[in-house]
Amino acid sequence: MEIRLATQSARRTVGVTMRTPGNDFELAAGFLYGEGVIGSREEIAQVSYCVDPGIDTAQRYNIVNVALRADAMPDIAPLERHFHTTSACGVCGKASLDSLRVRSLAPVQPGPEVSAEVLYGLPHTLREAQGVFDQTGGLHAAALFDTDGRLKALREDVGRHNAVDKLVGWALLEGKLPLSRSILMVSGRTSFEILQKSLAAGIPIVCAVSAPSSLAVDLAREFGITLVGFLRDERCNVYSSPGRVLVPAVAR
Amino acid sequence: MEIRLATQSARRTVGVTMRTPGNDFELAAGFLYGEGVIGSREEIAQVSYCVDPGIDTAQRYNIVNVALRADAMPDIAPLERHFHTTSACGVCGKASLDSLRVRSLAPVQPGPEVSAEVLYGLPHTLREAQGVFDQTGGLHAAALFDTDGRLKALREDVGRHNAVDKLVGWALLEGKLPLSRSILMVSGRTSFEILQKSLAAGIPIVCAVSAPSSLAVDLAREFGITLVGFLRDERCNVYSSPGRVLVPAVAR
Repeated sequence: MEIRLATQSARRTVGVTMRTPGNDFELAAGFLYGEGVIGSREEIAQVSYCVDPGIDTAQRYNIVNVALRADAMPDIAPLERHFHTTSACGVCGKASLDSLRVRSLAPVQPGPEVSAEVLYGLPHTLREAQGVFDQTGGLHAAALFDTDGRLKALREDVGRHNAVDKLVGWALLEGKLPLSRSILMVSGRTSFEILQKSLAAGIPIVCAVSAPSSLAVDLAREFGITLVGFLRDERCNVYSSPGRVLVPAVAR
Repeated sequence: MEIRLATQSARRTVGVTMRTPGNDFELAAGFLYGEGVIGSREEIAQVSYCVDPGIDTAQRYNIVNVALRADAMPDIAPLERHFHTTSACGVCGKASLDSLRVRSLAPVQPGPEVSAEVLYGLPHTLREAQGVFDQTGGLHAAALFDTDGRLKALREDVGRHNAVDKLVGWALLEGKLPLSRSILMVSGRTSFEILQKSLAAGIPIVCAVSAPSSLAVDLAREFGITLVGFLRDERCNVYSSPGRVLVPAVAR
């Protein structure tokens, strides 16, 4: 899917991603928000599929236009990179190592707390809700839960960063940001970029079935995010800000 | 890791990837070959870590320079994209959907044949050889096998496309391209880009423990690659060019 950004003065392609069709407008909005291009829902005037007559019909629903309001001030500097790469890491296209530094985002606020028992239940709930995985065996999932372990939203995508973008885009378009009382759970590993997207959305607790990268742990520690990995079989590792996780011996 | 390309006239950053340190020169060479920037080992004059005094010591082994020979004619057009995206899909940074089309690569040649029994043994051999996965639980692996199932090379990386780039870079630097008698086995899923890299390296059989994407299947069918998915528990799916896989009933 190609994401095009339209402002008063110009329309430009800002991203192409291999995605699983569905929730495309959320994906476009969440991508722009997570990258810091837009800062609020109010900056968006309209999200729509491109209907240019010159578009190949096979691609007609693969191009999404995001039109911004006249007074929006998008920060497209991070998009103006002059090269590309092919990593599956989620930091593709950054112009240099320096640009990988997290942009000026504040640490997440203290709280909330969640019991370890609630965390242990998340993988099962996530897996049960993964309808497309059942059909294909090939999709990542990302879901938002409240601190009682209730599923609030789930998105599936062939790309794990896309699944998170779709969730954040959903929250943005629904006016639910920041997600300061939510838990993000992903089906695979946690990358630097997933933590960066979580931070932008104000998510205090990030859980994954598998491992985090070392840079994901670094970012979580720096910004006060509770990062949980290897959450499976009633066990987990907590890599940062463990105070939000209440274990039985100290549960109130 | 940042990859810099140095020609007679200029030095420029051509990619930044979140990688697992190790085999960095292979990664740089394989990336450039797989992207079509260079076409042979002979175009490379030297691969080295950047020793600019201005480099932060923490980043000193995170920047690799690839210097080309004076007569090399690198095709850097695909690197001159003016935006970025964050997908984990491996097509990040392509300027438009059109540019995703495979560049002018020839289909793989017919042959070789391999027995299904040999394929069934590959996941175990791969898993046994994954030393870093044993320590971290968080790495992808890619390996090359011959048609008797003997492991020829294995690389691990936090990014699955990086692992393939390292393998292709190894083959390039060792003078082993094209890999027309080799089987590529990856620990996760197969993407469009993994198939594209395989095609560039002339690999006729690509196997994965998990699912292929629909575009990966399309590409395999178009270019005559035998694509095998869900290769586990003595079973698999063959999505394209099944003639290379000999099942017991018809084995000669």
